[in-house]
Amino acid sequence: MADTMRAAVKTKPAPGSTDVKRVPRPTIGRTEALVRVKIASICGTDLHIFDWDEWSQHRIRPPLIQGHEMAGEVERVGDEVTSVAQGDYVSFEGHIACGQCYECRTGQAHVCRNLRILGIDRDGAFAEYVAVPATNLVKNDPSLPLEVATIQDPLGNATQVVMNANVPGKSIAIFGLGPIGLMAVGLAKALSPAQVIAVEYKNEYRKRLAKKLGADVILESDATTVDRILELTGGEGVNDVLEFSGAPPALQQALKVVRPGGGIHLLGLYSNPVTLNLSDDVIMRGITLYGITGRRMFQTWYQMGGILKSQHMNLKPLVTHRFPLDEYEKALETVRSRQCGKVVFDVEA
Amino acid sequence: MADTMRAAVKTKPAPGSTDVKRVPRPTIGRTEALVRVKIASICGTDLHIFDWDEWSQHRIRPPLIQGHEMAGEVERVGDEVTSVAQGDYVSFEGHIACGQCYECRTGQAHVCRNLRILGIDRDGAFAEYVAVPATNLVKNDPSLPLEVATIQDPLGNATQVVMNANVPGKSIAIFGLGPIGLMAVGLAKALSPAQVIAVEYKNEYRKRLAKKLGADVILESDATTVDRILELTGGEGVNDVLEFSGAPPALQQALKVVRPGGGIHLLGLYSNPVTLNLSDDVIMRGITLYGITGRRMFQTWYQMGGILKSQHMNLKPLVTHRFPLDEYEKALETVRSRQCGKVVFDVEA
Amino acid sequence: MADTMRAAVKTKPAPGSTDVKRVPRPTIGRTEALVRVKIASICGTDLHIFDWDEWSQHRIRPPLIQGHEMAGEVERVGDEVTSVAQGDYVSFEGHIACGQCYECRTGQAHVCRNLRILGIDRDGAFAEYVAVPATNLVKNDPSLPLEVATIQDPLGNATQVVMNANVPGKSIAIFGLGPIGLMAVGLAKALSPAQVIAVEYKNEYRKRLAKKLGADVILESDATTVDRILELTGGEGVNDVLEFSGAPPALQQALKVVRPGGGIHLLGLYSNPVTLNLSDDVIMRGITLYGITGRRMFQTWYQMGGILKSQHMNLKPLVTHRFPLDEYEKALETVRSRQCGKVVFDVEA
Amino acid sequence: MADTMRAAVKTKPAPGSTDVKRVPRPTIGRTEALVRVKIASICGTDLHIFDWDEWSQHRIRPPLIQGHEMAGEVERVGDEVTSVAQGDYVSFEGHIACGQCYECRTGQAHVCRNLRILGIDRDGAFAEYVAVPATNLVKNDPSLPLEVATIQDPLGNATQVVMNANVPGKSIAIFGLGPIGLMAVGLAKALSPAQVIAVEYKNEYRKRLAKKLGADVILESDATTVDRILELTGGEGVNDVLEFSGAPPALQQALKVVRPGGGIHLLGLYSNPVTLNLSDDVIMRGITLYGITGRRMFQTWYQMGGILKSQHMNLKPLVTHRFPLDEYEKALETVRSRQCGKVVFDVEA
Repeated sequence: MADTMRAAVKTKPAPGSTDVKRVPRPTIGRTEALVRVKIASICGTDLHIFDWDEWSQHRIRPPLIQGHEMAGEVERVGDEVTSVAQGDYVSFEGHIACGQCYECRTGQAHVCRNLRILGIDRDGAFAEYVAVPATNLVKNDPSLPLEVATIQDPLGNATQVVMNANVPGKSIAIFGLGPIGLMAVGLAKALSPAQVIAVEYKNEYRKRLAKKLGADVILESDATTVDRILELTGGEGVNDVLEFSGAPPALQQALKVVRPGGGIHLLGLYSNPVTLNLSDDVIMRGITLYGITGRRMFQTWYQMGGILKSQHMNLKPLVTHRFPLDEYEKALETVRSRQCGKVVFDVEA
Repeated sequence: MADTMRAAVKTKPAPGSTDVKRVPRPTIGRTEALVRVKIASICGTDLHIFDWDEWSQHRIRPPLIQGHEMAGEVERVGDEVTSVAQGDYVSFEGHIACGQCYECRTGQAHVCRNLRILGIDRDGAFAEYVAVPATNLVKNDPSLPLEVATIQDPLGNATQVVMNANVPGKSIAIFGLGPIGLMAVGLAKALSPAQVIAVEYKNEYRKRLAKKLGADVILESDATTVDRILELTGGEGVNDVLEFSGAPPALQQALKVVRPGGGIHLLGLYSNPVTLNLSDDVIMRGITLYGITGRRMFQTWYQMGGILKSQHMNLKPLVTHRFPLDEYEKALETVRSRQCGKVVFDVEA
Repeated sequence: MADTMRAAVKTKPAPGSTDVKRVPRPTIGRTEALVRVKIASICGTDLHIFDWDEWSQHRIRPPLIQGHEMAGEVERVGDEVTSVAQGDYVSFEGHIACGQCYECRTGQAHVCRNLRILGIDRDGAFAEYVAVPATNLVKNDPSLPLEVATIQDPLGNATQVVMNANVPGKSIAIFGLGPIGLMAVGLAKALSPAQVIAVEYKNEYRKRLAKKLGADVILESDATTVDRILELTGGEGVNDVLEFSGAPPALQQALKVVRPGGGIHLLGLYSNPVTLNLSDDVIMRGITLYGITGRRMFQTWYQMGGILKSQHMNLKPLVTHRFPLDEYEKALETVRSRQCGKVVFDVEA
Repeated sequence: MADTMRAAVKTKPAPGSTDVKRVPRPTIGRTEALVRVKIASICGTDLHIFDWDEWSQHRIRPPLIQGHEMAGEVERVGDEVTSVAQGDYVSFEGHIACGQCYECRTGQAHVCRNLRILGIDRDGAFAEYVAVPATNLVKNDPSLPLEVATIQDPLGNATQVVMNANVPGKSIAIFGLGPIGLMAVGLAKALSPAQVIAVEYKNEYRKRLAKKLGADVILESDATTVDRILELTGGEGVNDVLEFSGAPPALQQALKVVRPGGGIHLLGLYSNPVTLNLSDDVIMRGITLYGITGRRMFQTWYQMGGILKSQHMNLKPLVTHRFPLDEYEKALETVRSRQCGKVVFDVEA
């Protein structure tokens, strides 16, 4: 095994500035594992960092290898590691929780106060090897295809949202058909809801993907959306809304189409503060707004693994583009285009 | 409309003693509805009453028209009824709750202290017409086939059990493949579990039905069952067991195959008291035993309706035998044989 | 028994316009009860109607007898009533649910789609007698003092909020010390929280009442509130916030002082839409916002009755002013002053 | 600091055989802490080990220092420990979970498959010093009295049971007034239940303690118990039963006095299998039986800490006997007598 590896390195605190080059292979501590990356996938966050937006300027300290979605094989483990072994087929939970704060000690590690993220706060998976805390690794079922294994971190986001909505038998509206919204369509549909109504704004490409993933009805987000959803639900509205768009108009629509006593599950991030009629739309109707982030560690991973095993869901259409790591910039531009599902790097050529 | 109707009437407090004959059509009160029965189905309880077992001797007061599972059309409603109207396609919840006890007033009407049951405590659905409290009627989706519509009362039992187990992503074992256990196989499988392991004792007919309804693995209940289930779950056991057999050996197996922290959901009734090692099998392992009866009114009906609408479940194979009401005895003997799924009466010929 | 009674009647669609005069005693239907009012209490809504605000202009149709908080004795019941009897000591749930909509049929009658309210949509309790649906009556423990019995409708609001927050052992902040917020202080404190921090804006009278009801710390709502609460919780924040103020600055403070993964329970109504930083304050921190209205029928009443029976809470200081019905206007002006707790009418002199 | 310490050492696999003598002070690993024990308390398990019962013969490997209940001060920490520091006032969670099994990874560490227990599977707290995994330590509020701090491990058992029963406003029956049952009386009473009915069998000493801890009614467990409880609850039964007795007749009574839809929370261990009428007593009445063990890590500890801080509960009467470590045998005989509450060792003289 060589001492160096190929990696995509953000070299400077500036837009772009990412070189695919050889760098030293990471070393590991006693509780860490070194993973040989076979496949990795691109999150919207990776594009923000590439573009060096305001958030990135505050958070990221180049040089950095990005990437927190991946699948690969354990190459070597530290002295104290017993949970995984060399040769295991693994993916990782991108959030590294401290394990010591109140949140971590009460089953809420996904909102750990000292959260660090792979590929953001330390080197990540856009490389041939990555070093990670062994407890963050999850063993994959051997039959899980690589292109599904790599997207489990965002699929876990969708899973947490869908499980929070207790979908079976319900009418569900899903706003925002980016990759995580599309995953939620597939997941929700796999749990036998009365119907899944998917809503997107001006993106026929993603509407077509929603169809493939099983949405019963796909609507354009416009002035007719609310009436259409009420009509589809006999005037009563949906039980729950899953909100992935991060678009304020979508949230206003969500509040109008959810039943009294229903839930709105928020994962999509809004660029700016949002104005809500809390009295009429939330309080008087007994609505609950759930802010959801990350994945329950590791409850969500086990749930996701079980649902994947049931094979009621075909996620393969979701992975629409594959690139070698060398075509880093092209891959990121594909994400930017929004004419794609998930975009992956075949790291191991 | 004639003043009489055909009905199967248990005429005497003795085994058998059921005549299919013309009787006066029931009249209705201000809050009741008269329903024209199109199809009705037979519950195990109906066989107990037919056989005049000890329980029947204490509970039943002939003459009685049995039958609490059915689908039909509303013929006429009382003055104060607004929830249904003439012509509605309906089924009914067999349990008539008092609405006034603590349990009814706190969302637990399924364990109402003053529960009365159609076809047991008042005349039921093995007749051309049946009078029922209008609030017990549930409107069916027009597309719902009659043979599925009629079995919703027991399907609701299975639904309550399955929803209580929060199935998505879990490994589930189902003991007892009588009609309700078979429904649970179909329902559980529709909610994307990791796997559904079905267990039955000496009944190949029902094992074949379990296969059709989607069970991943079907086991004989014998000395190897526990080891087989542990093996199928990587030595860890299933998350939850759904117990429909009412057989003490099955419950002992259930306790050995459920994970620490898991749940056992009990619906099958045991003829005699059961001896359990509560300390080792329940307390020290943090197991919960849920006694489940009836259907949540009417949460379970809405959940069931939604799951049926998703069409992930094909229940038609479950209805294996159809008889005219005139062949009452033959139909009940078919139920007794256990070489059947659900047995229905085509009341409206 | 005379055919007339004394009542406070809003006579015209205009501010004030309320005469205390003799009117015909109400008659009752088959499922109703006539209650002799002993005591009634004033809700903030009654002042809105008195003042004829915009909401009132759309909702209220004079002539109307207001009042939905009361305690009294059943005088007579309709033919079909069996749940209460003449002589029973009762209070009533002010919300009349339809019983037929999805919400009512699934245990969410507090958000019934066809809700009607006593003293708003039909004549209420500011009179010697009131006719109500018998199912809305709740029997009081004979030992319950009249001045506590009358305030159970708003106390039920507070109870629903407090029970939703699962208070035992938690740090709790309560914003808004109007009567319902004050009740929540007493209730929360009775459930052994780590601490109850009460926050009010410029109202020393109500802060003194909060002290009597058991608040551990009472803060002014100003630029220091957030820091003070963080300091009181070791920098970690409270587990849950109960929001009764309806003041946007309070909600902003709430979002800053609640722990990651915590809950904000919203009952206070905001006059205008509110702008929230959903991404940073809600989604990324895994916060849940619960809109809460009314009382769970009748779960909340039973919980409240049980908590009152425990006698860990002394609500008497909360009833600060008592008037005869003849001093209607004076009583309402006392409510307007905000220099009061609950203001009651001793209807039966 | 000397290299040796005083400790009570079970020296041989035989009854008694426990010497209080000087032994080497334990060393600590990188993730451990050395705690100077100030006070320790005796669990029923310690008596079983002392008596060398069948369970002990299979589990215990002398020489062993027993004791898993204690309070003390951190003396020194391993290199990798940051969660506690020298001088911290701490108690410990007696269960050492593996952190790697499914149960540990999904918030159920209290039923970890690889559980080891301090003072049972490795040396415990009946000594001047004890070495423990640092993550098992919980920091105490400085104001917490030593005699309460030491009993938090069993108080946590009681807390898990009481929190599981969601006590506020409910009628609660508590069977079995050993130390944990008595703690549950105090805890339940602190959460404003409608009433707490405590039941014990032939032990006036402990009934008097239950009175001090706030039980509303205290009953003898005999042929009248069921009728008395039904009478105290208006014929309706209690909402939940907390079962600490481990006595089969108590469980039979529990099943007769719990409401339909209620819960029975089982912590007391039964020496032998128990025969239950599952059909009539559990299934048909919709009862849930919760097996409960250990403490939720560390949710239960935080809840307990918060409830203790509320000071609605005075646990001091519960600690009835204090001994120096030298009087080891006398202390254990006091536990055996059942004429005691908690019995503690003042380790630091």
